[in-house]
Amino acid sequence: MTLPDRGFPRSEYEQRTERAHGLMASLDLDALLVCTEPEVRYLTGFHTPFWQSPTRPWFVVLPAAGPPIAVIPEIGASSMADTWVEDVRTWPAPRPSDDGVGLLVDTLCEVVGRRGGSPGRVGLPMGHETHVRMPLSDLDVMRDRIQPLELVDATDVVRGLRMVKSEREVAKTAHICGIVSGAFEGIGDLLSVGMTEREAFAAFRIDILERGADDVPYLVGATGPGFDDIIKQPGDRVIETGDLLMFDTGSTFDGYFSDFDRYVAFGRADEEARRAYETVWAATEAGLAVIRPGTTTSDLWQAMGKVLENGGPTGGSAGSTPGGSVGRMGHGLGMQVTEWPSNTADDDTVLVEGMVLTLEPSLTWALGCMMVHEENLVVRADGPELLSRRAPAEMPVIG
Amino acid sequence: MTLPDRGFPRSEYEQRTERAHGLMASLDLDALLVCTEPEVRYLTGFHTPFWQSPTRPWFVVLPAAGPPIAVIPEIGASSMADTWVEDVRTWPAPRPSDDGVGLLVDTLCEVVGRRGGSPGRVGLPMGHETHVRMPLSDLDVMRDRIQPLELVDATDVVRGLRMVKSEREVAKTAHICGIVSGAFEGIGDLLSVGMTEREAFAAFRIDILERGADDVPYLVGATGPGFDDIIKQPGDRVIETGDLLMFDTGSTFDGYFSDFDRYVAFGRADEEARRAYETVWAATEAGLAVIRPGTTTSDLWQAMGKVLENGGPTGGSAGSTPGGSVGRMGHGLGMQVTEWPSNTADDDTVLVEGMVLTLEPSLTWALGCMMVHEENLVVRADGPELLSRRAPAEMPVIG
Repeated sequence: MTLPDRGFPRSEYEQRTERAHGLMASLDLDALLVCTEPEVRYLTGFHTPFWQSPTRPWFVVLPAAGPPIAVIPEIGASSMADTWVEDVRTWPAPRPSDDGVGLLVDTLCEVVGRRGGSPGRVGLPMGHETHVRMPLSDLDVMRDRIQPLELVDATDVVRGLRMVKSEREVAKTAHICGIVSGAFEGIGDLLSVGMTEREAFAAFRIDILERGADDVPYLVGATGPGFDDIIKQPGDRVIETGDLLMFDTGSTFDGYFSDFDRYVAFGRADEEARRAYETVWAATEAGLAVIRPGTTTSDLWQAMGKVLENGGPTGGSAGSTPGGSVGRMGHGLGMQVTEWPSNTADDDTVLVEGMVLTLEPSLTWALGCMMVHEENLVVRADGPELLSRRAPAEMPVIG
Repeated sequence: MTLPDRGFPRSEYEQRTERAHGLMASLDLDALLVCTEPEVRYLTGFHTPFWQSPTRPWFVVLPAAGPPIAVIPEIGASSMADTWVEDVRTWPAPRPSDDGVGLLVDTLCEVVGRRGGSPGRVGLPMGHETHVRMPLSDLDVMRDRIQPLELVDATDVVRGLRMVKSEREVAKTAHICGIVSGAFEGIGDLLSVGMTEREAFAAFRIDILERGADDVPYLVGATGPGFDDIIKQPGDRVIETGDLLMFDTGSTFDGYFSDFDRYVAFGRADEEARRAYETVWAATEAGLAVIRPGTTTSDLWQAMGKVLENGGPTGGSAGSTPGGSVGRMGHGLGMQVTEWPSNTADDDTVLVEGMVLTLEPSLTWALGCMMVHEENLVVRADGPELLSRRAPAEMPVIG
């Protein structure tokens, strides 16, 4: 396996900035403010797990023209200096009395002031799938102190930027999808009847790391004759003959996620479970068949939902509501384990080349029994290119 | 090693709720609203890495009397049903047109209405180390629609609850600290000159997992003759004789973190680096010496800072500003890799039994060269009980 390059060249960040400027212009923004990990990393290249510490806020201000400005805690100065960002402003955090708010307000006013003219508009993502990662009391102070600048919703800017991937981004996702595909294909050698769920989780996590993943931030799963909790942590349950096992992992390479699941059966698979597997597999085929630039996420939903309603090629398992309790049948994928858009009945996002998506049809095949199937792909001019290696058409039986 | 029990008994959640009710009463709150992972987990036991998906908001409402109410996306219903929470209200998320806001507003009004009387106060954490994990536009809609209910800052409620740990919580942190201590003590068998940083990171992460950690969500480090980026991801640098290596990891067992670092030298350690190590080690001793109930976090800061200013027992390395660019010399620890309080000059939190803390003095020992030292402990009636095994008094030389 050839390793993709680590990081991105300066040109990638320049292109992102140029695209951002275009999207900002369409909203008549004088500056964009972001404060969440993926957005800061996207614009700057700043990459650290330190975001798990809730103590300090981090800000990036992108002027309507010119490169981003980092407004960050002193502890990040050295790491930020290694990125392409030249204007790095720091304060000695944590400092609850003014944890960056003053420096941020000054920076916003300076940046917007450069443009002259009246009020000035600062964009901040406020819409679906976003949140503001700073204390609400500080946010309220900032909103007050930047007046007469107007704070407006810039969700469409970050959504527009991140939803379409560059070839370098796709290569990172493809690489981790390849690693995880290998781990899933080798699961028969790793797991067996008699192991506990915890042992199975631990073995699988270590196996993915040994195959070259940087990390396995997301691993959920379940075992049993059937189950409907698909975001579960392992318990002490011992795997028995006749059990199903589901693993769903978001593993990473260089900050980019895979996100797909697989089901296997131990020793034997019941007829109903096998038919459910084949139905979601067929629904995925139907989704893949309609993917091309111009198709919408709602077209995907319809194509997959139709198969689920009809119970698949064998008329086997008819799902209840398509998407069921999951609420959607796949989503965007990249720097986060789920990203915009959502494959739902009314999302209606138009697919374009370079979007990385998951297809994730699911159905309830018996009371308390859910079956989910997922693949990862990139939208190409002539259709989908699979990034995960396609699951077997029939439920694998191992052990 | 005896494994601590997984999860918590119902009585633990009842005690948390009772403490919460006491803290809420002191702020005259009719309800508490939380929407971030540790707070939701603390009150309910709901534990899943699914929070990494930014798509859906999650809410828990705690009435002034009675148990918590979960207001969550349908996908979480099955997992939440396994907790002690009986009142679980769901909506089919994602639904951007109303992603839980209506259900949340109804729940808040119902809960506050039960108490009767005028306006009604809903507490939401708004202060330092908190953020509101929902779209800002939805938050603004909620603020508007719950009127005349008043939304007030409830940081002190969640801070007060989470800062003091139960014995069951301490046992989980102690367990992961023991695992990571073993990994650090065995690092000489794992790493050697000629490895790249990436290889060293991967080997260390897998080693910690093999020793029984559930996960290694936080791993940063650096190698070289000296370095000052202490939140760094690995690069392609090859470890050489004479290098220092620093690893800092937050690993987890059952949702509770360790958080400490270690330095080692390969082949030989320079005099200056060794003196810096001994200085931060001595500063930690000074911090440990003053810990007891009644001491404040600022007393800890002073005690450690004095040693750093004087350059340690040998008068060796005098730090610049105590705490330097880190901004503090340790912090709380538990469900997150860093928690309240902060060991700073003006934090002034009074230590009480059951607080779990890190001591983390750091200094700059040469231009661009930082030395950080960290231990984890729990405050007991008669002083600190170390949870990490105390680092050697002199810098270990390996390989």
